[in-house]
Amino acid sequence: MGMTSRIEAAISSAVAVGQGQGAVPPRLASALDYATAPGGARIRPTILTSVALACGDDRPALTDAGAAALEMIHCASLVHDDLPCFDDADVRRGKPSVHRAYSEPLAVLTGDSLIVLAFETLARQSSQAPDRVAQMILTLAQRTGMPGGICAGQGWESEAEIDLSAYHQAKTGALFIAATQMGAVAAGQESEPWFELGARIGEAFQVADDLRDALYDAETLGKPVGQDDLHGRPNAVSLLGVQGAISRLKDILGGAIASIPSCPGEAQLAAMVRTYAERLTPVAPTVSATRSNV
Amino acid sequence: MGMTSRIEAAISSAVAVGQGQGAVPPRLASALDYATAPGGARIRPTILTSVALACGDDRPALTDAGAAALEMIHCASLVHDDLPCFDDADVRRGKPSVHRAYSEPLAVLTGDSLIVLAFETLARQSSQAPDRVAQMILTLAQRTGMPGGICAGQGWESEAEIDLSAYHQAKTGALFIAATQMGAVAAGQESEPWFELGARIGEAFQVADDLRDALYDAETLGKPVGQDDLHGRPNAVSLLGVQGAISRLKDILGGAIASIPSCPGEAQLAAMVRTYAERLTPVAPTVSATRSNV
Repeated sequence: MGMTSRIEAAISSAVAVGQGQGAVPPRLASALDYATAPGGARIRPTILTSVALACGDDRPALTDAGAAALEMIHCASLVHDDLPCFDDADVRRGKPSVHRAYSEPLAVLTGDSLIVLAFETLARQSSQAPDRVAQMILTLAQRTGMPGGICAGQGWESEAEIDLSAYHQAKTGALFIAATQMGAVAAGQESEPWFELGARIGEAFQVADDLRDALYDAETLGKPVGQDDLHGRPNAVSLLGVQGAISRLKDILGGAIASIPSCPGEAQLAAMVRTYAERLTPVAPTVSATRSNV
Repeated sequence: MGMTSRIEAAISSAVAVGQGQGAVPPRLASALDYATAPGGARIRPTILTSVALACGDDRPALTDAGAAALEMIHCASLVHDDLPCFDDADVRRGKPSVHRAYSEPLAVLTGDSLIVLAFETLARQSSQAPDRVAQMILTLAQRTGMPGGICAGQGWESEAEIDLSAYHQAKTGALFIAATQMGAVAAGQESEPWFELGARIGEAFQVADDLRDALYDAETLGKPVGQDDLHGRPNAVSLLGVQGAISRLKDILGGAIASIPSCPGEAQLAAMVRTYAERLTPVAPTVSATRSNV
């Protein structure tokens, strides 16, 4: 099974547990699937799985649970970020956002349920390796909630004064750090040496996202553009200009590759980051992107 | 330290971890405290701690983590249930609801952060007893999310046709089942024998809540009344009448006491349920309740 199929199987199997059987509220069960499939590029679980493979992947069930859990947290964040009280987005991944397709109450509950299901999916694997699972749950929680996860990142947008470094690391970096660290822990490695790779990939995605937000049209992106300007959010393109931001993106990705800890699959992992770097870097303004969702 | 102080200390210590130090978004950090303190009767963590004590409480740090985690999930559910798209409640526990006091975005994030923090609080205790912690995380997740937790219970309210039995067990029963089972597991006992006590206490609270909703005024309750009628939700008082509902409440609590598994603290636990039973049962319509929040 290729990595893409493996990750899709892990996500759909985890979501199926949440959907249950018998006496379950059918619209909420349906919304769990709608919010998670078809997905975007599955970049976070791909990084997690790639790191686990580079480290030997000796407990593949843990890797799969980690990949599914991380992607469910990401999807939950998209569903809640799209709500009317945040971005009020009508479209996500080229189809109506969850609150548009199902209702606002069901969108809140879909996000809540996916967050819970992420932790449940990991806890179900505890008998495989209790110490690794506990560490994965802790890492995922720290990168999701307060004070340093994506909830904190979103929370900064409700402040009059933003700590930009804390904001970017929490808002975009956190789940990439979770990806590299959870992948390493799933394969029995220490998490700390994998922090920098995740943080740098996160920075790169933030800059790439800023470029896309500034350069592409809504049809290409599959979601509204100009959101940063609209919501007064800080943006690398407004700080550095388009060419400056592209140059910064390349520097960050070079640093990411240099930071990869010594491991059996180090070379393949570096190749994967290079591949993503090419896909991430816009060729020219308004040219269609090869990937429309991250 | 008495049980009340012990539970308050566990909750405030867990919330302090989520509030963090240094570069954190201050309003969201403040809202975590606002949403969890001062609390209501802390009935779910009290039941959890009482069951753990009845079973020997040989790992008090696990009991405390469980109590804090369970109460944070309960508080998160109140914050989200109060949102404009659900109950649109202006008041909770006698003060403005979180979205009124802080904003709707911060209320969504407060709920999300508390859910995550609940699982993080448990995962932090894993080194104490990894198997017990994993079971506690799994139990809490199953009683919080989909397909059988409080998210599912709330999800039923978005359906045209409601499975009443599944609705009640998920909406109100789930966190009481989590309370008895997590308390037992924290003290090294099997969870299954403790299901019935939790389920019956949950039923009793549902009936008591229906009675309060039908009989009391908003000032006494500290929240809006008549919400079931307003939202067309099923209610024991409309099915059985006031005296019928009171009689049903007594039957359920008798069954709860009879279901307590054999354990060292069985007699004290039965006494606790009896005490709650007396407090729960309305003396007469419109008389002030001794407890205004559950």
